[in-house]
Amino acid sequence: MKASQFFISTLKEAPADAEVVSHKLMTRAGLIKKLGAGIYNYMPMGLRVIRKVEAIVREEMNRAGAVELTMPVVQPAELWQETGRFEKMGPELLRIQDRHGRDFVVQPTSEEVITDIARQELKSYKQLPKNFYQIQTKFRDERRPRFGLMRGREFIMKDAYSFDRDQAAAKASYQVMAAAYRRIFDRFGLTYRAVAADSGAIGGDLSEEFQVIAATGEDAIVYCPQSDYAANMEKAEALAPTGPRGAATQALTKTATPGKSTCADVAALLAVPLNTTVKSLVLATDETNEAGEIVKTQVWLLLLRGDHDMNEIKVGKVPGLAGFRFATLGEIENHFGCKPGYLGPIGLKKPLKIVVDREVAVMADWICGANEVDFHITGVNWGRDLPEPDMVADLRNVVAGDRSPDGRGELAIERGIEVGHVFYLGTKYSKGMNATFLGDDGKPAFFEMGCYGIGVTRLPAAAIEQNHDERGIIWPDAIAPFTVVICPVGMDRSDAVKAAAEKLYADLLAAGVDVILDDRGERPGAMFADWELIGVPHRVTIGDKSLKEGVVEYQHRRDAAATKVAVADILARVKGRMVV
Amino acid sequence: MKASQFFISTLKEAPADAEVVSHKLMTRAGLIKKLGAGIYNYMPMGLRVIRKVEAIVREEMNRAGAVELTMPVVQPAELWQETGRFEKMGPELLRIQDRHGRDFVVQPTSEEVITDIARQELKSYKQLPKNFYQIQTKFRDERRPRFGLMRGREFIMKDAYSFDRDQAAAKASYQVMAAAYRRIFDRFGLTYRAVAADSGAIGGDLSEEFQVIAATGEDAIVYCPQSDYAANMEKAEALAPTGPRGAATQALTKTATPGKSTCADVAALLAVPLNTTVKSLVLATDETNEAGEIVKTQVWLLLLRGDHDMNEIKVGKVPGLAGFRFATLGEIENHFGCKPGYLGPIGLKKPLKIVVDREVAVMADWICGANEVDFHITGVNWGRDLPEPDMVADLRNVVAGDRSPDGRGELAIERGIEVGHVFYLGTKYSKGMNATFLGDDGKPAFFEMGCYGIGVTRLPAAAIEQNHDERGIIWPDAIAPFTVVICPVGMDRSDAVKAAAEKLYADLLAAGVDVILDDRGERPGAMFADWELIGVPHRVTIGDKSLKEGVVEYQHRRDAAATKVAVADILARVKGRMVV
Repeated sequence: MKASQFFISTLKEAPADAEVVSHKLMTRAGLIKKLGAGIYNYMPMGLRVIRKVEAIVREEMNRAGAVELTMPVVQPAELWQETGRFEKMGPELLRIQDRHGRDFVVQPTSEEVITDIARQELKSYKQLPKNFYQIQTKFRDERRPRFGLMRGREFIMKDAYSFDRDQAAAKASYQVMAAAYRRIFDRFGLTYRAVAADSGAIGGDLSEEFQVIAATGEDAIVYCPQSDYAANMEKAEALAPTGPRGAATQALTKTATPGKSTCADVAALLAVPLNTTVKSLVLATDETNEAGEIVKTQVWLLLLRGDHDMNEIKVGKVPGLAGFRFATLGEIENHFGCKPGYLGPIGLKKPLKIVVDREVAVMADWICGANEVDFHITGVNWGRDLPEPDMVADLRNVVAGDRSPDGRGELAIERGIEVGHVFYLGTKYSKGMNATFLGDDGKPAFFEMGCYGIGVTRLPAAAIEQNHDERGIIWPDAIAPFTVVICPVGMDRSDAVKAAAEKLYADLLAAGVDVILDDRGERPGAMFADWELIGVPHRVTIGDKSLKEGVVEYQHRRDAAATKVAVADILARVKGRMVV
Repeated sequence: MKASQFFISTLKEAPADAEVVSHKLMTRAGLIKKLGAGIYNYMPMGLRVIRKVEAIVREEMNRAGAVELTMPVVQPAELWQETGRFEKMGPELLRIQDRHGRDFVVQPTSEEVITDIARQELKSYKQLPKNFYQIQTKFRDERRPRFGLMRGREFIMKDAYSFDRDQAAAKASYQVMAAAYRRIFDRFGLTYRAVAADSGAIGGDLSEEFQVIAATGEDAIVYCPQSDYAANMEKAEALAPTGPRGAATQALTKTATPGKSTCADVAALLAVPLNTTVKSLVLATDETNEAGEIVKTQVWLLLLRGDHDMNEIKVGKVPGLAGFRFATLGEIENHFGCKPGYLGPIGLKKPLKIVVDREVAVMADWICGANEVDFHITGVNWGRDLPEPDMVADLRNVVAGDRSPDGRGELAIERGIEVGHVFYLGTKYSKGMNATFLGDDGKPAFFEMGCYGIGVTRLPAAAIEQNHDERGIIWPDAIAPFTVVICPVGMDRSDAVKAAAEKLYADLLAAGVDVILDDRGERPGAMFADWELIGVPHRVTIGDKSLKEGVVEYQHRRDAAATKVAVADILARVKGRMVV
């Protein structure tokens, strides 16, 4: 490609609404152009990146035996009503009525349509396993779209859906996809982790997120440097302490802590470590009748160490706590006779259920609220001052230094951007839509399903969050808009420069390298700034003076400076630095 | 590709709602699957065809210097309100409100968005000419979607938009696109015509439709077998007759024609040729005030030969007749004192404007209604029986045998399916959206624009309407889902068959041929029927018996029978019959 035949549009300033670096750089480099909130034009430079991402995804999906099709963007509501998602999904689902007043949605995913296809097309176990995928435009009406392509409303997603005859086969299909995803993310040339994820409300056991590592990532990733353990924060288990509980050494003492309502404040006031304090969290669960009216409410007290954070996913899995909410002030007053900030498990006004984090269960001589404003109790000990806990569970987020659940080291935490997800669905959709096939026993059986997504337009944004500097983007070769840029200096004044540039351009094209020749006639400074902003990984500069010495200049986007390379060697140098 | 790794789903019966052969065959061959009215899943076999169409379009668009980008499917209404199309477009434009109640549309085309991009990005004449295109999902909420992909609601279109500094440059850009379209349609391997088209209400001068010739086409195409003249019916001019008007030989006579209200019936009753009769069409035009109230109505009488049909586009271009409507019965009674069926220009109750077709203006001794029920007048002559016509115009559709407008032969008529359109837009959108650039005189000027569409998902349907037989589809090589199918007979029983099939498969793949090996283990009859229905152009059958003779069987989809080819020669034979 020659720049004069292409469209290059760079900006000095980032848009005012750009909060993250990828949004700033994608806009400044002319990769995207905002049309509305969360809705972007994919400009020519950006579309090249997206197409390279798509090509890698498509190749590896095909290699893994998945078959591509395309489902409509605008989908009739009937199928979405069949699974109940038309009502359940809330305003994120963009709803439309056509000219006849019939309901439609713009697809956010396509479980319903693919299950409808499967129940019509896959009639026998002999047709299984089958994996269908599409690379298609999606829409989610985010309440607060932001961060450019990171959390847009319209986006491109690759979504695949596997259909199997039984759980074992479905798990095998899941593993095939998980392996394909590793190949895909390896090929992108990004640092990433496949992390175990919670299977959530959608059901099923197997779930992994593919997280591109970046300091700016929204998600906390837990991993073990000594092993291959990795999970997201929701999923990562905090193991039970191995040592025994310490013996009681202090007397139970009510202590004035005027105005100190947090564990941190209390520990500071009393000059004790934060991990000797215990925080009290009050939750509630409601039982409703068929009309949806609340007929019974249970209040719960959760005890966590002062330096630990509650993990809502884990708490939701404690028997009885599914669908919990935080208690109201009235409920708290009613049970504790005290306002929050000074609560504790001793001297309750009214009994409630107590659940204790694994760490709290082994503490001795701890500190908690006295259920009296401006007072805490120190020297609290299980068994002596209150009964032994009857429910102990993993309630907290892990922290760096916790033992790895695989027992092979200590956990570390870093941040990531979720760009892929593989997920074992089980029979959630096949049962919901009565999608069956005939098994080898001649009886109908529900499909065992999996779903597998990659955020095609989010991936470039994540790549930039991971790979940039103060000058701009630094693309991995595999997804760069162009792999090589040739920057001739004074091409209009020097026939030698022009000839050398054209020759190298032709040589690189002939070698199958995706090269752009910048024949716009820009000044060198502006030209270099453009390409550093755009982030093309390999640059060859050709100038009249160096050409007389028989050399041109090569600079990788990560190199501090250019190096002189003999004209005869430049093709080999570029190819030598390329990561294919 | 091996069939066992792919997805093949054929049907014996066409769906009940399929009226045209392409809809029937695309459904039966498993290329598409209906999701809702006018909304289809592109199944794996169909998607391969669509991708090949896209690839050809993309290559030629790039070669012609156009630059690809992608505009959102869901577009904010603001831009559409700027041009007025949000209100004007009617229910075909699918309108949406998001969670905040803001208006959006699903794009049916993208003139507004691309003009918005241009007015922000193309600031100087130095950046022109520029041509941007996308291959993207579109939606038109057709009142009566039908014919499968021929008139669907959701579809894929390639739409390109050129921006130029002046008319001359815009016309040059138009010609570049028109030439690219010829290359594209040549490469599809279809019989087509580029026909001159009316530029319609959208304005501008240059307009050509690319019509795939098919007996089932919706459009009538006019062409001259002796020259390269071709136009659609709306556009094709009926030249004025060259000979002089004949002399009057008959007396004006009122003749009873009881119950005969059509020219055909009158001609039959009187035993005269239909082309001696004249039909009277009564139109009206309304003048409105700013409030949209009708302040004045003009009634018009149009005279056409009894064997000719009115051309509404041409009539709308007669000075004063823009926006015409057919007159009401009341208006007709008021002016003629007679009901339709017996109307004529002689003895009017009230004056009106008369417009006469070119052919009628040279008629002598003609027949028209007497403005009295059950009576006509014969022997009518201009000048003698009524004043010479003061407005003569081309009002009719041409018919086969008319002189070609280029004066180089006689017109013929065939039917076609419109799949592409190139169109000079002028400044319609740039003025409507105040889209300007700085000219070389330092002054802002409006972009001169063109737009260029190809119906990517309609093309396969048109190809099938042109290329099919009683057994199924016959694809041109360029857009076939697979170019070659290898059909091994008894592959599971014969190692020799399996080895020969696998070897040919590997050889064809190595030669870059898009081949599928049918390893499903179907019986030969079912296997052949599938591939004939699907329409793969080249088939190689490998059987144990013929293999012992050292031969396999080759059959092109258009061949009446298979021919034996030595195993050593089959690759060359297949490649020899391929049209690249």
